[in-house]
Amino acid sequence: MIEIYDTTLRDGTQRKGISLSCQDKLRIAVELDRLGVHYIEGGWPGSNPKDIEFFSRAKDMTWHNAKISAFGSTCRPKTNPEDDANLKALIESQTPVCTLFGKTWTLHVTDVLRTTLEDNLRLIEASVAYLTQQGREVVYDAEHFFDGYKADPAYALQTLQAAVRGGASRVVLADTNGGSHPWEVETVVRAVLPHIPVPLGIHAHNDGEFAVANSIAAYRAGCTHIQGTINGYGERCGNANLCSILPNLELKFGEKILPEGQLQRLYELSRFVSELANLAPDDHLPYVGKAAFAHKGGVHVAAMRRNANSYQHINPALVGNQMQVVVSELSGRGNLISKSEEYGIALDDTALMKGVLEDIKQLESQGYSFEAAEASVALMIHRQKPGYTPPFKLIDFSAQVEHRQGRGIFAEATVKVEVQGQVLHTAAEGDGPVSALDKALRKALEQHYPQIHRFHLSDYKVRILDGDKGTSATTRVLIDTRNGTKAWSTVGASSNIIEASWRALADSIEYGLLELK
Amino acid sequence: MIEIYDTTLRDGTQRKGISLSCQDKLRIAVELDRLGVHYIEGGWPGSNPKDIEFFSRAKDMTWHNAKISAFGSTCRPKTNPEDDANLKALIESQTPVCTLFGKTWTLHVTDVLRTTLEDNLRLIEASVAYLTQQGREVVYDAEHFFDGYKADPAYALQTLQAAVRGGASRVVLADTNGGSHPWEVETVVRAVLPHIPVPLGIHAHNDGEFAVANSIAAYRAGCTHIQGTINGYGERCGNANLCSILPNLELKFGEKILPEGQLQRLYELSRFVSELANLAPDDHLPYVGKAAFAHKGGVHVAAMRRNANSYQHINPALVGNQMQVVVSELSGRGNLISKSEEYGIALDDTALMKGVLEDIKQLESQGYSFEAAEASVALMIHRQKPGYTPPFKLIDFSAQVEHRQGRGIFAEATVKVEVQGQVLHTAAEGDGPVSALDKALRKALEQHYPQIHRFHLSDYKVRILDGDKGTSATTRVLIDTRNGTKAWSTVGASSNIIEASWRALADSIEYGLLELK
Repeated sequence: MIEIYDTTLRDGTQRKGISLSCQDKLRIAVELDRLGVHYIEGGWPGSNPKDIEFFSRAKDMTWHNAKISAFGSTCRPKTNPEDDANLKALIESQTPVCTLFGKTWTLHVTDVLRTTLEDNLRLIEASVAYLTQQGREVVYDAEHFFDGYKADPAYALQTLQAAVRGGASRVVLADTNGGSHPWEVETVVRAVLPHIPVPLGIHAHNDGEFAVANSIAAYRAGCTHIQGTINGYGERCGNANLCSILPNLELKFGEKILPEGQLQRLYELSRFVSELANLAPDDHLPYVGKAAFAHKGGVHVAAMRRNANSYQHINPALVGNQMQVVVSELSGRGNLISKSEEYGIALDDTALMKGVLEDIKQLESQGYSFEAAEASVALMIHRQKPGYTPPFKLIDFSAQVEHRQGRGIFAEATVKVEVQGQVLHTAAEGDGPVSALDKALRKALEQHYPQIHRFHLSDYKVRILDGDKGTSATTRVLIDTRNGTKAWSTVGASSNIIEASWRALADSIEYGLLELK
Repeated sequence: MIEIYDTTLRDGTQRKGISLSCQDKLRIAVELDRLGVHYIEGGWPGSNPKDIEFFSRAKDMTWHNAKISAFGSTCRPKTNPEDDANLKALIESQTPVCTLFGKTWTLHVTDVLRTTLEDNLRLIEASVAYLTQQGREVVYDAEHFFDGYKADPAYALQTLQAAVRGGASRVVLADTNGGSHPWEVETVVRAVLPHIPVPLGIHAHNDGEFAVANSIAAYRAGCTHIQGTINGYGERCGNANLCSILPNLELKFGEKILPEGQLQRLYELSRFVSELANLAPDDHLPYVGKAAFAHKGGVHVAAMRRNANSYQHINPALVGNQMQVVVSELSGRGNLISKSEEYGIALDDTALMKGVLEDIKQLESQGYSFEAAEASVALMIHRQKPGYTPPFKLIDFSAQVEHRQGRGIFAEATVKVEVQGQVLHTAAEGDGPVSALDKALRKALEQHYPQIHRFHLSDYKVRILDGDKGTSATTRVLIDTRNGTKAWSTVGASSNIIEASWRALADSIEYGLLELK
């Protein structure tokens, strides 16, 4: 029986740029519990007052699968556990589990802790014992275990045995600096295993691009407790990625770990966590990346229709992902039908569908790309429908950028649109020409569509297609827009970057207005 | 002796969103050659007319370490090699090496190729033999080798033996679907090795997050040829990442692969490739990510001052990276000195160098990046020199884009510059605002500098840096300019895309005029 220990909320948040509110952390914990991990490390109460709030709220909630754990270090050199503020914070967290990390590596004991090797063993045993005496389950994390073992295997083992004497329920070998490789991990775990009477765990980092392989190597050598984070978030190069470890163990090594049906939620969970962490999801992540099962039309797709396994290593549905149906000039009718279903548009009319396909082909030959701009595709389907009335019609626009001595740079735009029979003509300034156009358009539309204030442009991407044409190259612009939790993407292309931006912008607003009628 | 086969320019470009011009590909190939890889796969001439240009230009260049290879498939079922358009394209590429892929997996032979198992063996042997008879070295890539071996080990082996009979110099086992794990790879490589008299290679994909571990597993089992891409670029979840494999092999497994001093260029190369590919560099990549050796102040940094290895698995300088404290990649004096030497500028004056470093720091904090814009760096050095007179001084510019009914889109720009004491004020139309600015600037300068007609803007790239600020995001523009065989790159950044473009454009012209005085 393999158990999973999630540390997204503690070690994962060490990644630069992640900052989770207490509410975010609780929402993620609820989803992790539902997924079926066995431990959720919520934070380090001794280092972070925000984490204290997390534990105080978590203790009144119901957890179905996971035990909540609070993280901290063994007490300070030459002191006793009962006098240690850090251990006091752990006790006050009232979590069923406390995870304590201690020193393995003699270098760290003498040079960083600045104590004796004997005192370090005492700190470990006494700190673990103090918490177990308070009725807590204690998971012991052996910091720098592999480096420490290489330097002095006998001493490294003694530190683990001190934790066991103190009553630790689990002993976890941490590759803190992340530089070990799977064959070292396997050898060391096999050497340690016979000496430790409690379940052994692994905590890997990705500095050699081996974190997942090291976790699996440890599992093969006998570790039954695996620590990691969702999406591999963590400092430097990240922690071991549970979104790869879980499907690898379940689908490649035949381990049943999660409750029935939960592995299929992995894709959704991965995106949920990246959403709350406010990081763009990595489309290329194994298993859970949006492009993890993306195939470029033609031969591959045809081959896959003959045999689904010919170009994919697993059925993507097993992790809640899907073969990416890429709408492009190469795409067949099947692709488009599934897209229109996704957008809830009945597309049973063959002539209509043919029209949309022709539009797509024609626009892609101009440099459009609809792979990541489903809202623009949805609009094309709408526009092919007889009787479709767009929420606004563009008449004119202009944008102007000036650099005049003494005044610096300056951007202004005008927009003329027709809304419900009325012609509106507005002007605005902006940081640049596109921001000025956005503001002028919103000014024109806000009288009829006040909901437009809720649309937030969340990303703006520019790609030059045929860069070798220099400044006359075709430019493709992608705009992501958000309205609360709903997000959509639109595209525009032109040899004029302003026009390309304008088209993506106009589509973004039109689609938003259709959705929020 | 381990050899490295780079396929960034072929398999790497399968990654969604990468589009490299021929000039970009040549620039990357030059850097790969300098790094010391043994093979550079430049493209697939049979599938892509752009790649034909690459090979035609590459054959007249001097390669110091690497052999250039063209990629293609074995000839079509039931045909002969001499009638095959794809093989013809390989021959016409005139590369010393051709890499041919063929089918291993019986499922693919019967269901995808739709031929017999015997015919497939014939295709492999005949295609390889045809190319070797033309004097080419042939690397044979066995597609889906591990899946094919699991399905039918005897047949899988026969396909390799057919390639050997044809005269293949290398036989490469490809994990095309990327789902194998290191322990399978190790077992299969050990089983195959005794049957193959030529060096065996590995080509791994990252679908299980094992691409690097699989490559190292294959190496441990006896493969001496390793294929991969810079930054692990590739379709779906990417190819095996050479930026992790190379330091792992050199620093953890004691293999000497690259020429002296080249491993220290890895960080720079990684960023150079991401810059040309127009992808944001991944800060969390092992070894070469900007955050790979980033420590959150306090304890870690203090501990590292006591012992540099206490919190890092290698010395980051070994791969050209650094413990993160520093604002700018170029801010070391050593880098700057080597850059200025590259541009033939004596930079012995410490005060001057300090000035340039300060400029770089200040501009990088605004969103500039000088990694791929050496001409902008060279100009900054020139400008710091006392008595530098720029060939022209910008006074004003304006750019205007209009969409008026009946007229369509329209772009116009004006430029006011001072050249040799004379003020020139010009206007021009263009495909877009930047092209209009380019034309107006050239109009103003051509009277004094007729050589400007020889400058050709060969590429134009736009990167949005903080896309979450929507249309107010900072924009970075890179412009490549060519004058015959000489090429240079410049950069501009601003929250106004026109201003960013203008700055890169003005630098491009100024640098060209200095070089062509």
